[in-house]
Order: sequence, then structure tokens, then C-alpha cells
Amino acid sequence: MTVSEPSETVTSSERAALDQLYTDFAAANLAPLWTQREGLMPNVPQPDAYPGVWRWSVLYELAARSGELVPVGRGGERRAIALANPGLPGTAYATPTLWAAIQYLGPGEEAPSHRHSQSAFRFVIEGEGVWTNVDGDPVAMRRGDLLLTPGMRWHEHHNTTDKPMAWIDGLDIPFVRQLDAGFFEFGSETLSTRDTPSRARNERLWGHAGLLPVGAPTTKASPLMAYRWESTDAALTAQLELEDEGFPGVVEPGHAVVRYTNPATGGDALTTIRTEMHRLAAGCRTASIRVAGSAVWQVFAGGGEIELEGELHTLKTGDLFVVPSWAELSIATETGLDAFRFSDDPVFEHLGLDRVNRKEEA
Amino acid sequence: MTVSEPSETVTSSERAALDQLYTDFAAANLAPLWTQREGLMPNVPQPDAYPGVWRWSVLYELAARSGELVPVGRGGERRAIALANPGLPGTAYATPTLWAAIQYLGPGEEAPSHRHSQSAFRFVIEGEGVWTNVDGDPVAMRRGDLLLTPGMRWHEHHNTTDKPMAWIDGLDIPFVRQLDAGFFEFGSETLSTRDTPSRARNERLWGHAGLLPVGAPTTKASPLMAYRWESTDAALTAQLELEDEGFPGVVEPGHAVVRYTNPATGGDALTTIRTEMHRLAAGCRTASIRVAGSAVWQVFAGGGEIELEGELHTLKTGDLFVVPSWAELSIATETGLDAFRFSDDPVFEHLGLDRVNRKEEA
Amino acid sequence: MTVSEPSETVTSSERAALDQLYTDFAAANLAPLWTQREGLMPNVPQPDAYPGVWRWSVLYELAARSGELVPVGRGGERRAIALANPGLPGTAYATPTLWAAIQYLGPGEEAPSHRHSQSAFRFVIEGEGVWTNVDGDPVAMRRGDLLLTPGMRWHEHHNTTDKPMAWIDGLDIPFVRQLDAGFFEFGSETLSTRDTPSRARNERLWGHAGLLPVGAPTTKASPLMAYRWESTDAALTAQLELEDEGFPGVVEPGHAVVRYTNPATGGDALTTIRTEMHRLAAGCRTASIRVAGSAVWQVFAGGGEIELEGELHTLKTGDLFVVPSWAELSIATETGLDAFRFSDDPVFEHLGLDRVNRKEEA
Amino acid sequence: MTVSEPSETVTSSERAALDQLYTDFAAANLAPLWTQREGLMPNVPQPDAYPGVWRWSVLYELAARSGELVPVGRGGERRAIALANPGLPGTAYATPTLWAAIQYLGPGEEAPSHRHSQSAFRFVIEGEGVWTNVDGDPVAMRRGDLLLTPGMRWHEHHNTTDKPMAWIDGLDIPFVRQLDAGFFEFGSETLSTRDTPSRARNERLWGHAGLLPVGAPTTKASPLMAYRWESTDAALTAQLELEDEGFPGVVEPGHAVVRYTNPATGGDALTTIRTEMHRLAAGCRTASIRVAGSAVWQVFAGGGEIELEGELHTLKTGDLFVVPSWAELSIATETGLDAFRFSDDPVFEHLGLDRVNRKEEA
Repeated sequence: MTVSEPSETVTSSERAALDQLYTDFAAANLAPLWTQREGLMPNVPQPDAYPGVWRWSVLYELAARSGELVPVGRGGERRAIALANPGLPGTAYATPTLWAAIQYLGPGEEAPSHRHSQSAFRFVIEGEGVWTNVDGDPVAMRRGDLLLTPGMRWHEHHNTTDKPMAWIDGLDIPFVRQLDAGFFEFGSETLSTRDTPSRARNERLWGHAGLLPVGAPTTKASPLMAYRWESTDAALTAQLELEDEGFPGVVEPGHAVVRYTNPATGGDALTTIRTEMHRLAAGCRTASIRVAGSAVWQVFAGGGEIELEGELHTLKTGDLFVVPSWAELSIATETGLDAFRFSDDPVFEHLGLDRVNRKEEA
Repeated sequence: MTVSEPSETVTSSERAALDQLYTDFAAANLAPLWTQREGLMPNVPQPDAYPGVWRWSVLYELAARSGELVPVGRGGERRAIALANPGLPGTAYATPTLWAAIQYLGPGEEAPSHRHSQSAFRFVIEGEGVWTNVDGDPVAMRRGDLLLTPGMRWHEHHNTTDKPMAWIDGLDIPFVRQLDAGFFEFGSETLSTRDTPSRARNERLWGHAGLLPVGAPTTKASPLMAYRWESTDAALTAQLELEDEGFPGVVEPGHAVVRYTNPATGGDALTTIRTEMHRLAAGCRTASIRVAGSAVWQVFAGGGEIELEGELHTLKTGDLFVVPSWAELSIATETGLDAFRFSDDPVFEHLGLDRVNRKEEA
Repeated sequence: MTVSEPSETVTSSERAALDQLYTDFAAANLAPLWTQREGLMPNVPQPDAYPGVWRWSVLYELAARSGELVPVGRGGERRAIALANPGLPGTAYATPTLWAAIQYLGPGEEAPSHRHSQSAFRFVIEGEGVWTNVDGDPVAMRRGDLLLTPGMRWHEHHNTTDKPMAWIDGLDIPFVRQLDAGFFEFGSETLSTRDTPSRARNERLWGHAGLLPVGAPTTKASPLMAYRWESTDAALTAQLELEDEGFPGVVEPGHAVVRYTNPATGGDALTTIRTEMHRLAAGCRTASIRVAGSAVWQVFAGGGEIELEGELHTLKTGDLFVVPSWAELSIATETGLDAFRFSDDPVFEHLGLDRVNRKEEA
Repeated sequence: MTVSEPSETVTSSERAALDQLYTDFAAANLAPLWTQREGLMPNVPQPDAYPGVWRWSVLYELAARSGELVPVGRGGERRAIALANPGLPGTAYATPTLWAAIQYLGPGEEAPSHRHSQSAFRFVIEGEGVWTNVDGDPVAMRRGDLLLTPGMRWHEHHNTTDKPMAWIDGLDIPFVRQLDAGFFEFGSETLSTRDTPSRARNERLWGHAGLLPVGAPTTKASPLMAYRWESTDAALTAQLELEDEGFPGVVEPGHAVVRYTNPATGGDALTTIRTEMHRLAAGCRTASIRVAGSAVWQVFAGGGEIELEGELHTLKTGDLFVVPSWAELSIATETGLDAFRFSDDPVFEHLGLDRVNRKEEA
């Protein structure tokens, strides 16, 4: 009960009047602030989402069973199985803004063409042989690659091999659903192309560091749809080497980070989702930080442990963990660890809601 | 059921395997996309929020009764009664992103100091005599004025008269709650100032068209906290007069609009909420439009009728109506109408999610 | 002679070879850096432009005599007499980037319509009764007003009274000439309008602090063409009053400054020229500062003295002074002083060339 | 004589008064607009700069002779020989804004450390073995590379081989000189480093397409100092291949262009100078265009011919040509041609002065 509530000395007639008032509020589709202010406006974020870990081995096993039992096709569209945060019951949301799923495509399978206002990416932890056609431009998917399908771009996937392939999908489905900003269209029933080039047309146009094609228009989301592991790995390696040589580059000792960006603007690759790859050198322990905004991480290589809201979790390659807003996180590794992170940071930054708290060393 | 669902010819062992799969999904906090894709990603926005009208007479009467029965004070903080959209049960939200309430302050009453990351404004439909102190700068509130309290600015209200005063509060509470971006702090128990100047210090510094004070820093949200009715009225009058004289200025025939902006950047006055005043000349009927994003309107003067998602509503001065995302809206007036509108348009525009559909004339 | 020059011990054959080399350079339209590096790239700016004062009484008297002797008409276009900096001989430039002139229009006279890529403004130190038609929109000119004609806007002046009127014109003629960026077109031989409204259409649309017309397009240069003295005066008064009351707002003690800006962006009113009004309270002495970039000032009201590159000058109302790049300037006044300043600061800031040095107190 | 000049029917006393007026103007350091308006404000740019060709063979031969006769050292700083446009007599300017020179460094020679507000680049047409240390970061220089030294970055060159090396230097010396924006400082007398890595630290941090180092600050000018030929070549090759395959990418048929940009912003690599590489496929003839702003080109590979302001010039590898503002240019090649272009386009675009005219086909 808040201070604004009438005191216990109210008379019974006052109480009756008050009861009538609340009844009348409800009848008029109104609700008083004073009885719920604290829940609506907490002192610091009180996320419903649960901070926790999802094991890749579990995800993969269930995805593979789905591959046996559930066809891919029009309507369901994708054989994707999403992290359903138990703190957000009834949803298939990892956080209030982010969707994270494993997608599984069997030998020779095709996922049909569609487009939507939701921004999407795929990040590949293992395997290869699937191509995503983006507006008819075939983009190879290989281990360590980040592949984009920004809002309203047609896309379809097809597996050209005789082996299944799985990866994670990240989207802003919860955020767009909350905003009622979603538009969706089905595309053609047949693949736009069966070409399987190693390098997509968009990579050939936009994938040259610092060089922009003058003849191509710039866009808010990245026109580059593929960020290859070789390049990401080299960038992270360089940061840690520079640190060893005594030069700046890392965000904290032993902790290298690259952000995937629109080469034409330097802004985030997707308008609503930040994507980054982190590398921790062997023996690194990050500072404990709280960030306003939520994130999902996946261990890409190596292993380690996290302290997340006071709980320790040991992580292996492929494991995902969800960091709700303002949850305290520290990551440590003895042998080194690469981790992919995606978050709603761009939303916070564009709107002036970003905030970070870094815990000082004891 | 989606096309991806197994057909009805499945064997009972297949069905059992499938049942086990779904059970295992749930146990692992996972959820398949294919059973819920359509709900998550509709073809066009399918807002839960209800498009409807709230009557000022009802709001005011209930607010006045609250003034008798419920004290204002620390904890509840404000005697504000919010539009609780019946499509969003269990909340006090007007739309998924916007909070809209009537606030009522009795003679001599004070609403205590606090600050929060949520952006807020007050729009005054009648009365005067309350001052909002923003970071200690007393801002008079009068009919037709828009008053801002951007995120993390200390603010408190006090009624200096022997009459009650009521106005509407607009905030991004639902949006910030969804993002888990809320920070809140209580301020001093005593008013920072009892000064009651006609013009606040921020108005004296920033309230000169096209003139910026070189000695003052610019900020993302507007440093100008008060937009006076005299100025808004003059701007709208000019647009319609120019139209009569044959010059451009209005958004469509008979329809003038001004946007409240940060004078230092030209951007929206608040980072997450767009605020605008619309004036329809007598006899005007607007085009029917759908906008991605939600809005709340209040009739400030005059009256008219709206067609909102196919339903007609007659509006009087003070009435509010809620327009969920992609709801079709047309406004008409025989005698002229002024209406204040606030919306989540800045969120949509910053993130590349904005979309408008204008219905062509038959 | 630079260190790179051969020493005096060169043999005569070496000298001959060197002479031949320089001869061959010249024949090939080439020039060595090493003989002129210091002049081309001085340690600090070494402006050719002279820091000095032009007296309004002299300007006005000569302008009046021109009014008797020189007609206004097509070709010459304007009866404007420019500050010809003696450090920039053969030009009519105040500084390497700025043009500053007195323009004089006799009773009933008209200056014909033209447009050009050069940005222009008029600042009125005395008189009234002339209208500038900007794209057919008649803009009244009165004491203390700043009036704009951004690049490629048609404009013409006409004096509606039986008295002459004079004002200063500021343009980026030298800068545009240097860049070879000038485009010029003659307009109609007859006035687009003889209307003489007190307030132009652009003022009616754009002249409301913080309020933007949603139906009108934004532009790089200001769409507002007139900044009225009443508003400028009020803004400056407020800054000094706030200082007296103990609040921020001035740029240094006793020194108020407003910048004329594009209300739709907060940027400079003109793309290449910064325009500002300064007010010094009685007894104020500004800090001595050096700014990279040049400026022209005109005393609008009151008087005082400046120390400009070590020389003292006493100033009366109307006097102009020119501050070349990096010239040291301090202004003092016993009784108070208003001064209009225009400069090439936007060029420096956009291109990352801006630099300021503030002399510390002894 | 302009229309504003008094007609020939003036009386002798009028003429005497007029003569006196002009005399008095001069004495007061004033100049009338009406006698010079046309020269100051031409209808279209009337550049003084000469459109013409400088032959690499001539430049190289004179540079080599300078290498024999003129030492490199403190004061002269660089053995650079500049294009001295005969239309800009007394200067060493290629255009009113751009400096272009051949720099020549003999075996084992060093050019001493300095820094300045002028932006600079080097473009290498042949040779290798020189390193430029930029703020102590050694940057290798090789054929086809573009190397930057943005404003106020310390830089020095040293030749590590027993062969001379020559390249072109491009700077904004004339523009900065005109603005009086130049600041210059001598650095250490000894090299900051003799390291000769293949890849500089800045390349290791910033040279990964679409990937930004989160731990490094962004800057207005590019933090990437080297753009390697392999990458430029690949980008141009891709554009022409995509054209052959029927996809967009080129600016006009057979004409590929990449712009060197700041990877953190997508803006021009230098704040005042645009840098681009053009490739014309065999048989390509570009449209004839006029651009407001000046440029210098160098043929990097292949050959062809230009039509420049109506004159034909045949070009070989290494030849430079200067295109003054608004000069009409078309380039043709039978066998294919790569050409580097630098220009003052960023100045024009930032300030709203940009304009292009494309001649329609007959």
C-alpha cells in the first residue's frame, strides 16, 4: 500500500465511497496510478525475464528430432525453436524485445520465401551448405558467419547438402509485436535462385573495408548481408595482439569486441538489434556490469563461466544465455572464449534510454 | 493449424513422438515457431489495444471524486487516473507504448518531487494556477499549454489557488516498462521553490523562435519545457490563413498541424513521444489514414466526429480517443476542431519502422 | 631560405644545375614545396586581411552620395559599397571568405530581382520602409532585424517610403568565388509583389518558438527569413537577467549571445555564414580570444572599445570592425553595447578546422 | 560597364562628382559592387585555374633530378614538387582548393616529422619500400595504395631501400591557406620508429569490412590510414563483373567507382578532400559532366583520352589532369583505364553548394 492510500482510520462511509470510486474507475476503463505506481515505475528495472542458460546440446537434439517429425513449409515457414523465457510465460520470447531460436534445415530442404518488417539475422555455430537468398542474392552460410535479413527483404533458405544444418536466428519479434509494427508477406513458392556462389553479390559490392560503391544507394540497415568468420576472427586477433604489444584497442584487459555495422554509415548493422562478437583471452575475467537493455549471448568457441545475477554457470561451446535488463554479468575463462552477443542497445541509444553501471573492483 | 503441422494421416506412433517432442520443448523452456508464427508475425499489425473514446466528463467527475477521497503524497506520487485500454487487460495502458491520464490537484495541494527515465508531458485543457517545478525552475500551467518533463528531470507540482485543476499527463510508461528501461528516484519532501513566475527560466532562454542561447548546452530532449497556447494558436491560425491566401503550409485541405520540437535540433520535443496540435477548419474531413504506431488524441476545442476502424464517434471538447497501430482514422468537423495528439512516432521513425497508408478517395 | 636549400658551399656547376632545375620547374608549370613551405603552411594563421575598423559615418555619407550619383539597376544590381580590406588589395573583400557592404536604397527605388548560390543576409542598423521579396514573399526590414536570402532564392528590394534606407549586406562572395561555386541568374524586371505586410509568410509559418509546421518541407538553410529585433532583444535581456538572478545562460560574465538558427534543425541560419548578436552589460570586458576563422562585427547600439591584435579602437554605434583569423580580440564597454557578428565559423566546424584560444587572465 | 553606370550624357560636373566619389571610396578602403558585380558573381563558375594535363614522365624526371641536387630536411620538410596551375600564377596550386605534388625520396632518405591542420594523402603509382609513420604507427606504402594523414596527425617518411620512390601527395593547402586555417608544428628530429610491418596498427584495428572495434574512439576523419590496392582492385572488379551479370553497381555503363571512406561513419576519408578510384572498362566513354568544385585525376593504369573543356588529351599511365570547377569532362578508353580522383566535393556537399550537370546524349 502506498502512502497515498487512505489511512486505516477511514470511516466506513468513506470506505464505501472509495470502493464505489474504484468500481467506477473499472467501469469507465480507468485505473489509478497511486495503487500501482511502484510496479509501473520501479527504482531500477525489474525485468520479468529470467536470467539463464539454454544448452546447445538440448537445443540441437530437439531440433534434430523436429527435423524427423515436422516438415518445413508455407504457414509455419521455418523449423525454428525459440528460447521461451519462463519469466515471460505464454510467449516464445528470450527477452521482452528479442527472439532467439535454433533453426534446423534437413538435407535438401527448403524454407519458403517471405519478408517482414522484423529485422533478422542468422549466426552459424557449426556446419555449412545452406544458402539464404536475400532479394534473390544467394548468401552462403558457414561456421562463424553472421548473415542479415533486414526488414522487408525477401528471404528463403535451402540446404544444398545431404546433411542437416542448424544455426541461431535472432529477431526483434517481441519488440515489433509490442509496438504493433509487424508487416508480413509470403513470397514465391519456388526458390528465386539455386546458385551457390561462395560470395554474394552484396558482399562483392560492399565487403571492402573503407571502400564504398558510389553507384549503389545507402540504406538505414546494412546493405552488406554477410560478415565472414575469417574477417571477424582476424579483427579480434588483432585487438588482443595490439594489447600485448602495448597499444589500445580492447574494451578492457583481455577483452576484445567487434561490432557488426553498416559500412555506409558506421551504425548498427540492423536498426533495432546490435550484434557483436566478443573474445576473452585465456585467464580473462570481465568487470561486472549492468546494462539497461537485454541481450542474448552464445558461446561460439571455447568455454568459461559466467556470474549472472549472482549465480554461476559453466558454459560450453554453443550454449546460450539470456541477460535481462540491468542484470549483473561477469564472464571468465581459463582457456579463452569467443561469444556472440545480440541486444536491443540501438533502441536504447537512439531514444536516450541507455545506461551502464560498472561495478568497481573490491 | 499451419501447413507445417503434420497431416492428419500421421500414424499413432508419429503422433506420440510429436506429443513427446512438444512436451520436451516445454520442459526445456523452448517453443516452436511453426505453431504460432501467424500470431507473432501477422500480415499487418493486429493490435490488442482497443480503438475507442474516453469522455472528459467522466474522467473529470471521477478525478474530482478522487480529489475528495484520495490524498496526494509520497509513494502514489500523483493523483493520476489512467486510460486502461480494455484490450490490454490488467494494465493501465492507453496503448502498448503510451500512458494517458487525467491528473487532478486540489486547492493548495502539492505532488511531491521525483524523477524517472520515463518521458512525460502535461497538456492543459482547462484551468490554471498550478506550477510544475522542473529541476527547480517553476513552469506555469495554463489552458492550451504543453509542458514537458523529459527523462531524469526532477519535477513536482503545486496548486497555488483555491480551486482544483486538472490536465492530462502523457508518458511512455508502457514502452519503458516493456523495455525494462525504467529508473525512478524520490526527491525532496519540500518544494524546491514557491516562485510563481509567468514565464520559466527555460522559456526565457529557449523560447525565441530561431534564436539559440550560445552559452547553454543542447540536449537530446527539448530544453524548452513550456509551449504556450498563444504561440500554438497563432501558428495554426497562420497555416489556415495561408491556405486561404493560396499558399502552402497545411498537411491537407483545411488541416493545419504543428509539431512541438526541440528548438536546438528540430527533433521531437521528447525522445520517445511525438506531440502535435491539429486544427481542422469548419467543414474539414481528413483523409482516412492508417499509421504504423499508436496515438492518443484529445479534443482541445470545438467538436466533431471520427470514423475509427469503421465506427463513428461524436466528440466534444476534452474527449480523448485512442488510435491503435494501423487503425483507420478519419476526422470531420462542421464547426471547427482543435485536437492535441501524442504518439510513439519517434520510436518508429528512428528505427525505420514507420509506415503510412492513405486511403484514396472513392 | 629553408634548411633544405643547398648550402653555400655548392660548386658553381652544382649551382648551375640547380638553376636549370628551377627553370625547368617553371617551364613545366611546377613549383617546389621546399622554397615556400613556410609561407604556405605557417605555424599559426598569417592572414593577409587587415584587422581594422570602418566607421559608419563614413560609410553612410559615401552611400548617400552614391544615392545621388549612381542609379540602381540591372547589371550592377545593388547600390552596395563593400569593405575592401587593404590587406587583400584588388578585392572588395572584408576577409578571405566574407563580403560586408552598406547597401543604400533611395526613396521609391527598387533593386531588381536576381538569385545566386551565394548566401546573403541584411542586418538593419537604422531606418525602415524597405521590403525584400524572397521568392515572392515580402519581408519587411526594420531596425535590428536580420533578414536572410539563402542560396538560390529569388530576391529583390524596394523602398516604399520617401526616405532613403541603408543597411549592411553580408555574403560569402569571397568564399564562393575562391571555390568557383558561384551561379547567378537575373530575375524579372518587375517586382513580384508590392505587398507590404508587417510579417512575411515565412515568419507566419516558421516563426513560433519550438513549433514546426508539419506540412512544410525542411531545408538546409533556414526557411525563416526574418529574425525580428523584439525577439533578439528579449532573448539577450533574459540571459543577462538570468545571470543577475544567479542562473546560467551567458557565455562569460556580462556577455550574452544568441545565434540565429534554422528552426527546423538548430543549425546555422545560413550554411556558410554564422550570424549572432552579442550584448555586453555595462562594465563588461570580454576575455581575449583567438578564433580560427574570420568575422565582421557591427556595433548595433551603445559603444565601447576593442583591443584587436594589440591595438585599441573606440567604437560608436554603426561602426564595423574586421577580425581576421586568429587575431586576438577583446571587447569592453562602460555603458553597455550590442554588436552583431557574422563569421565563417560553419565552414570551419563542418570541416573539422575549428579552433579557439582563450587567453588566461594575468 | 554595367547598366548601373551613369550614362554618357552625364555633365562634366556630374562626372567630376563621380570621380571624387570613387576616389573617396578608395581612400576609405571601400569598393562599389556595381562596377565589379559580374566578375564577383558570374552566371556560372569562371575559374581562373587552367584545365590541363601534367605528364608523369616530366614530373618524374624533374623529381629525380631534385633528388640529386636538393636534400630533404627540416624547414623545406619534403622533396615535393607541385602542380603550379598557370591560371593561378604565383601559387603552387593545382586548383583554388587542392595541392597536388610528386614527392620523391631517395635511397635511405628520411623526411622529418611534422603535423599540420591541413589534410593530406599519398597515392602510390609505382614503387615501394617507404614507410610513413603516423603518430608513431608505421604505414607501408606500395603501388596502388592510398595512405592518409588527416589533420594534426604527426607524420614522417623514410625510405628503407636502396632505390628511390616517388608518389603523389594531395593536400588542401590552398583551401586552408585561403581560410587562414593553417596550424603547423615541427616534430622530433629522429624517427619515431624504424619498424616496417606489412600492415599498420590502424589497419589491424579498422581494416575489416563492416566490423568496428568497440574499444576505439571514432573520429571525424578516417582512423584507417591505408587503403590497399588489392582491396580497391577487387571492389572495382566486382562492380564491372556485376554489371556484366546484369546487376546494379556501376555509376554508368562500364564505369565503376569506389570512394575511400571513414569506416566508422561512411563519410569521406578526409574531411575536406574526397578520394575515389575509377575504373573504365575497355571501350567505355563516360557522359560529359560538369561538377561544381575542382578535382585532380591521375591515371593509375592503362590509358585513354579525355575531352576537357572541348580539348582532347591523350593520357598515359601516371599522367595527371586538373579539372577546374564546372569544366566539362568526358573520359574514354579503348583498352581500359584506372584513374584516381581527388576533389573538394566534401566542402561543397557539407555547405549545400554541390551541383552537377550531365550533358544529354545528342
